[in-house]
Amino acid sequence: MQMYSYVSHLECPKCGAEYSVKDVQQLCTCGSPLLVRYHLDQVKSALTKEEIGSRENSLWRYHELLPVEDRKHVVSMGEGMTPLLKMDRLGSEYGLTQLLMKDEGLIPTGSFKARGAAVGISKAKELGVKTFAMPTNGNAGAAWSLYAARAGMEPYVIMPLDAPLITRKETAISGANLHLIDGLISDAGKVVAELVKDQGFYDASTLKEPYRIEGKKTMGYEIAEQLGWEVPDVILYPTGGGVGIIGIYKALRELQELGWISKDRMPRLVAVQAEGCAPIVKAFEKRKAESEFWENSKTDAFGINVPKAIGDFLVLEGIYETEGNAIAVSEEEIKAEQALTAKLEGCFICPEGAATFAAARRLKESGWIREDEKVVCLNTGQGIKYPETVRAEAPVLKKGEKLSL
Amino acid sequence: MQMYSYVSHLECPKCGAEYSVKDVQQLCTCGSPLLVRYHLDQVKSALTKEEIGSRENSLWRYHELLPVEDRKHVVSMGEGMTPLLKMDRLGSEYGLTQLLMKDEGLIPTGSFKARGAAVGISKAKELGVKTFAMPTNGNAGAAWSLYAARAGMEPYVIMPLDAPLITRKETAISGANLHLIDGLISDAGKVVAELVKDQGFYDASTLKEPYRIEGKKTMGYEIAEQLGWEVPDVILYPTGGGVGIIGIYKALRELQELGWISKDRMPRLVAVQAEGCAPIVKAFEKRKAESEFWENSKTDAFGINVPKAIGDFLVLEGIYETEGNAIAVSEEEIKAEQALTAKLEGCFICPEGAATFAAARRLKESGWIREDEKVVCLNTGQGIKYPETVRAEAPVLKKGEKLSL
Repeated sequence: MQMYSYVSHLECPKCGAEYSVKDVQQLCTCGSPLLVRYHLDQVKSALTKEEIGSRENSLWRYHELLPVEDRKHVVSMGEGMTPLLKMDRLGSEYGLTQLLMKDEGLIPTGSFKARGAAVGISKAKELGVKTFAMPTNGNAGAAWSLYAARAGMEPYVIMPLDAPLITRKETAISGANLHLIDGLISDAGKVVAELVKDQGFYDASTLKEPYRIEGKKTMGYEIAEQLGWEVPDVILYPTGGGVGIIGIYKALRELQELGWISKDRMPRLVAVQAEGCAPIVKAFEKRKAESEFWENSKTDAFGINVPKAIGDFLVLEGIYETEGNAIAVSEEEIKAEQALTAKLEGCFICPEGAATFAAARRLKESGWIREDEKVVCLNTGQGIKYPETVRAEAPVLKKGEKLSL
Repeated sequence: MQMYSYVSHLECPKCGAEYSVKDVQQLCTCGSPLLVRYHLDQVKSALTKEEIGSRENSLWRYHELLPVEDRKHVVSMGEGMTPLLKMDRLGSEYGLTQLLMKDEGLIPTGSFKARGAAVGISKAKELGVKTFAMPTNGNAGAAWSLYAARAGMEPYVIMPLDAPLITRKETAISGANLHLIDGLISDAGKVVAELVKDQGFYDASTLKEPYRIEGKKTMGYEIAEQLGWEVPDVILYPTGGGVGIIGIYKALRELQELGWISKDRMPRLVAVQAEGCAPIVKAFEKRKAESEFWENSKTDAFGINVPKAIGDFLVLEGIYETEGNAIAVSEEEIKAEQALTAKLEGCFICPEGAATFAAARRLKESGWIREDEKVVCLNTGQGIKYPETVRAEAPVLKKGEKLSL
């Protein structure tokens, strides 16, 4: 019998405990995030990768490998199957012949957070969740609030006062219960923890619900499908909470188990951070399995200002297992690559995305990436969501004045 | 022999004069915009509509029906094949059972202007254009500047001082020669006209180059394809310059000639304008063939603040020929529908898009749209490009403060 989803159960990557996907689950009792497992053997006989090609143009084309069991619970705004663009002019600049960008700007809410929200909200709906709470640095709160509105759910969102103003407006217009906090996302997290405890709300904090990873992992499926079911040599990912890199690693392992991509090759995964907040890089340099809290973190790339990620050990595992890398770039490098990407490629990307280009440039210079390798930089959102990162001075003409060149 | 494009020639819809697509052309000598014609009979035998389904997920899937003759001149960032979303909750609100939204927010630069820019810039590149000039109210300038950057061209863009700040930033970061003007888009147009005259620049003003219509028309192809090669009953379009409605009408006529959709049915096309700038509505009410200049035009929906469109007669023809309509909505209605669309459907749309929902509500109330008709509202861009249209007041918590419900 063909099923919409071949989801099996939840599994703890730390202690191995298993949980049902039929009930609300948050963290494992041991404190670790949970991972979703599937009956991949059954998917193998139910579906070929060729069938995927003719399906709807969204991440739901992979529905057998997603956790929502009944199609009627899917809450979608057409998210996924974002373009994988050739970046030839920028590639020449770096000395790379096969530079590509996965452009997560072309997605509802303008950031890749939409993937996690679409799958997370759909599964929450299936589980009967009506109200949830989450802390956010901006984009995730906006995405979860808008998808919740479409699902008819009621979110409580706590956001730092200095989170990007546009994400605050997106959250507000969705009708979510929005509260600002004069503090950091960790302070917002404390408010959420109280709400969850006192009110019994569903906790939609990063990795405290197991399903946003499943949304994010589809970036990995898509990159493989868009390259004709091959993997690139290197994928660079701007790493805050790290859900995307965890998801991409998980996705590629699943594709290997399905036999849809070669078992012999994985892309080298690179976690890119800002010099002002680089806990994963620090842990990587010491070959540690976990990161330490980064004090007084600071970067204009707001989405990667995460001093300690709850899934850090999974991020580091993905890097070590693929012989990857972790690298921190400066604010100046980020700004310069953001401008250059617009100037040479016409792509107005977000600072987090620009960080991956700065990293690609450096890793090519150091020889870690070779000239003819296929390199995918992940742009996690639109530049226009952070207009304050760009200056726009221009001469002003008076009415009737002629422009002399 | 299979050709990439089956373009034939340019034709004047007013005087019937014909021009070659091998040389730069602007307006007809009679002053009218030119339309692109194709060898549709040859397309008919070269291609089936079923083949389209398996092609790349962008507007270039229709390349036989686009004017670029050599694939190598295509400048693309993955534009097109935007979602056609069901809007069930909003539909219930209006008493419509089949309300849909074509969401042009999921496109490079966040507005449907990307379609015109992609095809316009690609064709300009094919024609050897290196430098061009254009006036803009914001979104078109941003889109053309970014595509020009990708093509390695040099644009001169003149934008009113009060155009949306985000579009100014997009234009600036692309490296375009941006000048602001203390006046209206008509004042900017005069500066461009001088530049074109003095410097011999290509004139990329709306409809003064014939190819942006070809980009915009792909919205019509996509709506038909996404509905299984059927047309809806009604399409509502926010009308400023009107290039989209002209393009959609042209596209559907071409599909009829190809036999890909029924010759018996066209959707009724509705031009939606703001009460503060409604020249097409005024002309429609008097059954005129052309509009008159609208004095002191004013609306927060900046993209439809166009007091006199050069292609007005083509817009009106599309309305009359499809037994369509033209309707003006108030600023209050626009704001209310923008908020409601976010609240009920999770879609943060632009004010221009919201105007089409306000119009759908009214036309259902008046009985002009019936309950069970299939209705497509066109959202031309993202709400986040106009953050100033949304207020975001929210309570502020102090660090450590608890949220009491």
